[in-house]
This record gives sequence, structure tokens and C-alpha cells, in this order.
Amino acid sequence: MDSINVTLGIDIGGTNTVFGLVDRAGKCYVKDSIPTNAHEPAEKLLNRLFLRFDKIYNSMSDNYILRGIGIGAPNGNYYRGTVENPPNLSWGQVNFVELVKHYKNVPILLTNDANAAALGEMEFGVARGMKNFVLITLGTGLGSGIVVNGEVVYGYDGFAGEIGHIIVKENGRQCGCGRKGCLETYASATGLKRTVFEFISSLNVESSLRNISYKELSAEMVYDAAVANDSIALAAFEFTAEILGKALANTVAHLSPEAIILFGGLETAGDLFLKPLKYHLEDNLLNLYKNKVKILRSGLPKGDAAILGGSALIWNELDY
Amino acid sequence: MDSINVTLGIDIGGTNTVFGLVDRAGKCYVKDSIPTNAHEPAEKLLNRLFLRFDKIYNSMSDNYILRGIGIGAPNGNYYRGTVENPPNLSWGQVNFVELVKHYKNVPILLTNDANAAALGEMEFGVARGMKNFVLITLGTGLGSGIVVNGEVVYGYDGFAGEIGHIIVKENGRQCGCGRKGCLETYASATGLKRTVFEFISSLNVESSLRNISYKELSAEMVYDAAVANDSIALAAFEFTAEILGKALANTVAHLSPEAIILFGGLETAGDLFLKPLKYHLEDNLLNLYKNKVKILRSGLPKGDAAILGGSALIWNELDY
Repeated sequence: MDSINVTLGIDIGGTNTVFGLVDRAGKCYVKDSIPTNAHEPAEKLLNRLFLRFDKIYNSMSDNYILRGIGIGAPNGNYYRGTVENPPNLSWGQVNFVELVKHYKNVPILLTNDANAAALGEMEFGVARGMKNFVLITLGTGLGSGIVVNGEVVYGYDGFAGEIGHIIVKENGRQCGCGRKGCLETYASATGLKRTVFEFISSLNVESSLRNISYKELSAEMVYDAAVANDSIALAAFEFTAEILGKALANTVAHLSPEAIILFGGLETAGDLFLKPLKYHLEDNLLNLYKNKVKILRSGLPKGDAAILGGSALIWNELDY
Repeated sequence: MDSINVTLGIDIGGTNTVFGLVDRAGKCYVKDSIPTNAHEPAEKLLNRLFLRFDKIYNSMSDNYILRGIGIGAPNGNYYRGTVENPPNLSWGQVNFVELVKHYKNVPILLTNDANAAALGEMEFGVARGMKNFVLITLGTGLGSGIVVNGEVVYGYDGFAGEIGHIIVKENGRQCGCGRKGCLETYASATGLKRTVFEFISSLNVESSLRNISYKELSAEMVYDAAVANDSIALAAFEFTAEILGKALANTVAHLSPEAIILFGGLETAGDLFLKPLKYHLEDNLLNLYKNKVKILRSGLPKGDAAILGGSALIWNELDY
């Protein structure tokens, strides 16, 4: 029986932590999910995770060799292996890689979720063969992973790539970061909801969304309303695309990427969002960059994307 | 007699082209300047340049070995070796590296002037030992060179680093690029002049600058007026620093650089400009980045800076 080299990809979310074994070609062999339990310390999460993992690992009939562990975590710092004051977890600052070392004696790397997603696309998704691209995650907030010359940009302190916190409107919407007008207060699932409520208040047109409370409203409901030709929902997608397109034109002026890849949340709205986004990006680009930058949707299988990101982080390093 | 390894650094400006021999330590052995003659084809410039260079080179008593040629040129493309439609020269698109090969059989590289300046700072100036920084040139326009993981960011097509063309004001000042509100229409020597004239028109305060026409006015005059406590001049520096500080906060959110280095033009205004710039940068940074990013002035000797930039481009490559 041949043995199969695999890495363990882990993605720590505010609600669930998912993990799985992934071979060099991106095939996901085993995957599972446990609740993160945001108010527990990180040690407890790892206890539960490796108890579960070892049980699965030891029961597998094939001969898998664990080559390394790659982790995507909110506010993860690649250089230090730390998770630093993640907004949705009660961990404070914790050296997560050190903690994982107690369980497995293999190479271990950690970065934030958006950087992991960028590496996932580069190793296994639509960015295969690309050396310069930007990945944007459009979920509750807006995350970004930047790749230059084939390497993730971590910057001096490991926290590069916070495009969600570019200020796009002076004295704009309040952001969770304590400032105002950040891109993610407009361009994210939450931003879309806020825009719907702004338009309900400022416009006098009929809309099915007038019957839904802010807490009830989801990006999917806005999408369904837009598909049903609801004026407020359509205007909200258009406005979101305009703000994001203009912001990304400035990102292109920094980095001249081959592609901008959209990942998660709003990306699933497809052409309803991508068409106006492409229009507003092109409309705001310096001539030098026009008709050169692709806008692509994630190429990773939905259920495995987060695991593949963590796994790609460690495969990418093991190759050197 | 020992022989000395040198590279030839060339900087092509709209008015003058300067060149000189530079050793690995950044010592400039010979330098000279010829008029660029913007309306002549590139071939003629090179004819005159190498006629002059060979004359000097052949008359030198020491034994210099020419290891390579590095060129900084407006709209220079590193990947293709081309100069593409430079705004102040009548060249159109020309493969400049190919032309230089007719004269010297050594490695030849070309990039734009801001990227060359960034490499100059990394090899010989204040960025020695830095792996992640951004260089901003503040002259007639605003140029930028971005270094990530110790390498200049050229991006997919070789034209990354156009921070001067980030749009900072919707429907703002007309820019030479055909769009409106670009950073360089505010943050540059020209931008400072435009701000003085905006403030003269909008404010009712006395100012010595009310006696000077736009064509006559120079950034130095605004500096002198500010030193003499002129309200319009002081307000113009403050406004320029605020716009640049806010824009650079967004650059930091992309790249998390160790330092932002200012080069040329406005940088010479010193604390008058740097103090408010630091204030507005810090004031607009995401918490994660506060008190981490240095703002530095160029560390290259004024007269040699452009030559050292071109030379650094080729030394940097020869080292590998």
C-alpha cells in the first residue's frame, strides 16, 4: 500500500472551526467541523480538535503521512505565529503555533483567513500560475490577501492586506475598527444591508424589503429581491459595486495585479454584482491599466475552500 | 593597479539626462549631464550620451570594469525594457534597452525613475536593510516605488506603483492623466501651487503670494512665505500634508511598510511638511498600524541620487 503525503488545513471561524487533510494536488481526504466556542481559551479548542482529528486519523485505512499543518485564523500573524485580539474570539493575544506544537511535531504555519484563501487560489484555484493578484473576501466584513511576485504580502509586521479598512468616504459609516467610512462598511454582506436601509430611508420607491427588519435581513434576501426586479435591491447592488470598483481602481494603481479574485458572500450574487463591479473598476482605472485586470470568482469548491487555504499555506512553504 | 567594478547609472529627465559610474558601495566616480532634447528621437540621445561617456571612460587613469547599465526613465517598463509614451518626451513607445545594447555588451536594465529611486535608497540610502517600504517622489508630479519582501513591485504588466493616480477627491482637480481628483494634483510641487491659488480665491486673508502669478510661483516661494508665517502658505502646506497623510494611510492598509521615504521637491521643506504629514498619517491609520510606520527623508546625496538609482537597479540584479 502506497503512502500519501498530506497536510492538515485548519480554518478557525467565529462560529465553527473546520479542518481536513489535503494532498499536494488539493484533494481533500477527510474533513470535519467542530464549534469554535468563542468564549473558551484557544487551548480548549485545540484539545477538542486534536482529540477528534487523532480519532479519525488513526482509524483511516490508507497510509497518510502528515507533512505539516497550515492554519487560517482571524488576525493571524504569519511572522509570529500569533492570533492577536481577534474581534469575535475572547483569546486576546495567543501564540497559536506554539500551542499546536504540543500536539504535532511537524512544520506549522499560520496566517489570516484572507491570506490563506489567496494561497488556496494560487495552489488549487483560479490563480494557478499567477504571480500577482489580489483576493477579496466579501463576507460579514471585507478581507484581502495580496500576492506579489508569487508571494503573499505580509508587510513589515505581518498585518498587510487590510483593504477593507481603506477609508472611502470621509465621515462615512461607522466601522467596527472605531473609524468612519471604511470600505467594508459599504462593500460586504453587512455593507449591502446598510445600503438597503439607507436607500429605504432616502428613496420613495416601493420595495419588498420595507417589510423586513435589519436583523432579519440577509444578503441572500437582497439578492432574491434584486432578481425579482426590486428597485431598492438593484440600486443597493449597483451602489456597492460602484464603491468597490472605485476602491479597487486605487488598489490596481498600487499593485497592477493580473486579477482580482472575489471569494465568498457577495461573490455568489454572480453577474448581478460582477457586471457593475467590472464597469466601475474599468471606468475608474488609469489608462495604463484599462482592459488588463481580470475579475474572477473563486475557483475552490465551496465546502473545502477554507481547509484548502490553510493547507496551501503549508504546501507552498514545503515546496521550497 | 587594481581594477574597480562599476555600473553605469543613467537617469533620463524631461530636461536633462544624467549619468555616472558607481561602485558596489555607492561611490560615484564620474558623472555628467547632457540635455535630453525632448523632441529628438531616443537614438540621438543615446548617440550623444555614449560619445560623451566613451570619451570620459577612455581618458580615466584607473582601471574601471563596466559590469552593467541601469536606467531610470519616465514610463519605463522593467519587464519589456521599453519606455512607453512618456508624457514629456516625443518618443512614443521605444525599446530602449535594445537601443543601448548597440553601444555596450553588458547586462542592461531599465525601470521608471521612482522605482530606481526606491532601489537607490535600498542599496545606498535610508532603506538599507529594509525589505518592505514605499518611496514617494514629490516633484512636478507624485511618483512611487514599492518594495515588498526586498523586491520592487512591478505587478503583472510592469506598471505597478502609480500612487500619484489614486483618486482622493471625487470630481476633484483635473489631472494630466485625463481623470479628476488624482493624488498628484494635490500632493506635489504643482499641487501645492494649485492649493495656494485655491486658498487665495477662497480665503480673505492677506498673503505675500497674492503678488505672484501662477507661472512665476514655485514651491520654494511657498516655502519661503510659510517660513515668514504667511497664512496662505502655511495653510497650503497643512492641506497638502493632510491629503497625502490620508492617502498614505490607505497605502499602509495595503502594504504595511516599515517606512515611507520622501524623495525630492516638497521633502526639502523638512518639518514644515513632515510634521503635519506624520500627524495626519497616524490620525488616519487603522489601530493595527499606529506608531509603526516611519516617515523618512531620502538618504541619497542630492546631486547623485538619480544616478545611484539607476546603478542600484543593475547592482541589485548582478548580486543574484
